[in-house]
Amino acid sequence: MSAVDVIRRKRDGGTLAPDEIRSFVAGATDGSWADYQVSALLMAIVLKGMTLDEAAILTDAMVKSGQRVELGKAPNGTVPVDKHSTGGVGDKTSLILAPLAAACGVIVPMMSGRGLGHTGGTLDKLESIPGFRTGLSLPEMRRALDRRGCAMIGQTSEIAPADKKLYALRDVTGTVESRPLICASILSKKIAEGIGALVMDVKVGKGAFMKTDADARELATWLVGIAEKNGVRTEALLTSMESPLGREVGNASEVIESIETLKGRGPKDLEDLSVRLAARMLVLAGLTGDDADAEARVRKALASGAGVEALRGIIEEQGGDPRVIDDYALMPKAKTRAVVAAPADGVIAGLDAESIGRAGVALGAGRERVDSRIDPGVGIQLNAVPGDRVKRGDPVLTVLYNDRARWDSARALLEGSIRVADRPEPAQPLIREVIGGRR
Amino acid sequence: MSAVDVIRRKRDGGTLAPDEIRSFVAGATDGSWADYQVSALLMAIVLKGMTLDEAAILTDAMVKSGQRVELGKAPNGTVPVDKHSTGGVGDKTSLILAPLAAACGVIVPMMSGRGLGHTGGTLDKLESIPGFRTGLSLPEMRRALDRRGCAMIGQTSEIAPADKKLYALRDVTGTVESRPLICASILSKKIAEGIGALVMDVKVGKGAFMKTDADARELATWLVGIAEKNGVRTEALLTSMESPLGREVGNASEVIESIETLKGRGPKDLEDLSVRLAARMLVLAGLTGDDADAEARVRKALASGAGVEALRGIIEEQGGDPRVIDDYALMPKAKTRAVVAAPADGVIAGLDAESIGRAGVALGAGRERVDSRIDPGVGIQLNAVPGDRVKRGDPVLTVLYNDRARWDSARALLEGSIRVADRPEPAQPLIREVIGGRR
Repeated sequence: MSAVDVIRRKRDGGTLAPDEIRSFVAGATDGSWADYQVSALLMAIVLKGMTLDEAAILTDAMVKSGQRVELGKAPNGTVPVDKHSTGGVGDKTSLILAPLAAACGVIVPMMSGRGLGHTGGTLDKLESIPGFRTGLSLPEMRRALDRRGCAMIGQTSEIAPADKKLYALRDVTGTVESRPLICASILSKKIAEGIGALVMDVKVGKGAFMKTDADARELATWLVGIAEKNGVRTEALLTSMESPLGREVGNASEVIESIETLKGRGPKDLEDLSVRLAARMLVLAGLTGDDADAEARVRKALASGAGVEALRGIIEEQGGDPRVIDDYALMPKAKTRAVVAAPADGVIAGLDAESIGRAGVALGAGRERVDSRIDPGVGIQLNAVPGDRVKRGDPVLTVLYNDRARWDSARALLEGSIRVADRPEPAQPLIREVIGGRR
Repeated sequence: MSAVDVIRRKRDGGTLAPDEIRSFVAGATDGSWADYQVSALLMAIVLKGMTLDEAAILTDAMVKSGQRVELGKAPNGTVPVDKHSTGGVGDKTSLILAPLAAACGVIVPMMSGRGLGHTGGTLDKLESIPGFRTGLSLPEMRRALDRRGCAMIGQTSEIAPADKKLYALRDVTGTVESRPLICASILSKKIAEGIGALVMDVKVGKGAFMKTDADARELATWLVGIAEKNGVRTEALLTSMESPLGREVGNASEVIESIETLKGRGPKDLEDLSVRLAARMLVLAGLTGDDADAEARVRKALASGAGVEALRGIIEEQGGDPRVIDDYALMPKAKTRAVVAAPADGVIAGLDAESIGRAGVALGAGRERVDSRIDPGVGIQLNAVPGDRVKRGDPVLTVLYNDRARWDSARALLEGSIRVADRPEPAQPLIREVIGGRR
């Protein structure tokens, strides 16, 4: 099969045959397709699209480019389940729901990513815990799952190497923005890690990559459709990402907020979303068919402390210092504090998540370049959130920083992120819509 | 300037700034753009197009990637002029009009290509003349122009190296079919060879790459527009390519037919088109402003034998054996002959040029792969042409071949190429339309 013929078919708006898609993925991985051929086809896919069936086969081919972990069912009859978020600001639900689901008896092989753009990444957050290793080998992952019911790791070289190759090329050839390529990239890693079910948190709003409900719904529909075609039971929740989730944006500070939430002392929006997502994981895993029962089990794991103990076990298993659960002083913390004040009397109408996310990156909580180093102790704390009354000059945001120049470049973003109105605006529901998965 | 930003702009349907186009061309040539970035942008150009201004700047950037020969005006005040054909079957006008124009006092630096697809190439034809060298260096070209008024050469490494690089990539990435890329490729070489004017023969019909008048007109308009923006006075003639031009399709056989035509014994369609194109070259070069005068001068050069003597000089200058002019036995000739007969009584209504061109390639007159060797002595002779009465069994095509298997693979194509009707069909004019250039 000739690479040029495959490229030409997609260029002309045609549908690729399964063999053609498999030739492309295998060729990209083993080098029998030249990089310039791979990138030409990627651009044709960006501009001409793919059908859902093509994207499902692309995903399968990417899974098969490496190892697919076989976890099978747990002794309690459940299938392993993971959660994936399309990326938000202050979105630390993974750190809460993974231990909660594990505490309820679900196997959670969680493969996460790093911060992307203005959004945070689970791996970056976990690595702010002294000693925590996200780079487990597959045998280490299996051992962690056996012992703790949960492993929180990064992509290994055995998992979907085609994704690694394609992503690196997409990044330098302007071919990132493509629904089928995005879906195949997300799902190939998830499917390869051995899950039987998946809960997708598709973020929508000012602080998300999907700005409108329509875009988010379309992406969610594709993710669910492709995953189901690959035999993974999947449900997508469209959740609001207008202002940051919870009260903390950063790395160490988000870990601390997650521990607090597991101790029952977290902000309501963060607790509610984490519980809801964890409950869906229980249902999709097959632990219970009943929504209310699933949520009751998760709430019980939260109230009993089983969730926070599960997180302690995960930290211990992955080389981190488990004492952080009880002593936050062991976590890194930036040395200087600044405040961003309310510009007027009134009610907080909005805290723009994207601006706050960008400010976080500017402070060092995220990466401005691929090789930037994260500063785990910097962050932004929300002292007031939408709906809260403020007086002019009240501290709305507290900023922790280490580098004065970075604070200078973050300041205007943060000042611009606060919107004060005369009257409270109607609150948006946190969960806007659910797609797929329900039975 | 970042390659990714340039790629993304074109991907999103934007217009590239001159600096961005120049960065792309320079980057492709010097390697500062990776091949996979070059091919991604090429695909985006194929699918999103370019404006005429973008294509003109692309052309200029490709010219400037190498040397631009400075020929200046000839002592008689004319500017150097070339002719280019978009490719046809049996299209050997270059071999006739170049010596005719030179004999009339015009400087003709002709840079030609090889056969492409089912169409023939001037270089392949010239190289069927024993000893003929098309690979002249630029100093050799200048010397040939000084001494003979004409040089017929291939692309040298100094001329538009960006075109060589881009063409090689386009060939293997499905990005050949793009009007701006095609125009820039054709024109960058022509402009770099030092011409002041250009006559374009844009072929249209079954045997051409442009199948419809609308497509051919659009291409012609672009070629004229881009060349004029680059300071080259240009005229495009849309000419018919339904059946082969003249009576011979091959390499040596087309050279012999060209010599015959220069001796006044050629087929009328070939003679008329060659004379008309040569006359336009005289006008565009500035030798005369009068169409009728230009044609009279060309006809005089034909009748006097000045044209055939000019060809003798060109052959001599470029290392060929000039005795071929008088002794066709010195030209290669395939050893076996076969005949394709009329399938019915009637009038030849069509001889499908593309099928005959493909049959020629199958016989070895063209290349099936980039590295195929041309067999210069094979060819197809048209014993009857559209409008001629035939009886069933009359030999319509005579085939010269060396390899029985090749003849077997050409046979069905040739049999399918002949269309016999009850009545003659109205003849199409050879020149369908003229675009640009006229004053």
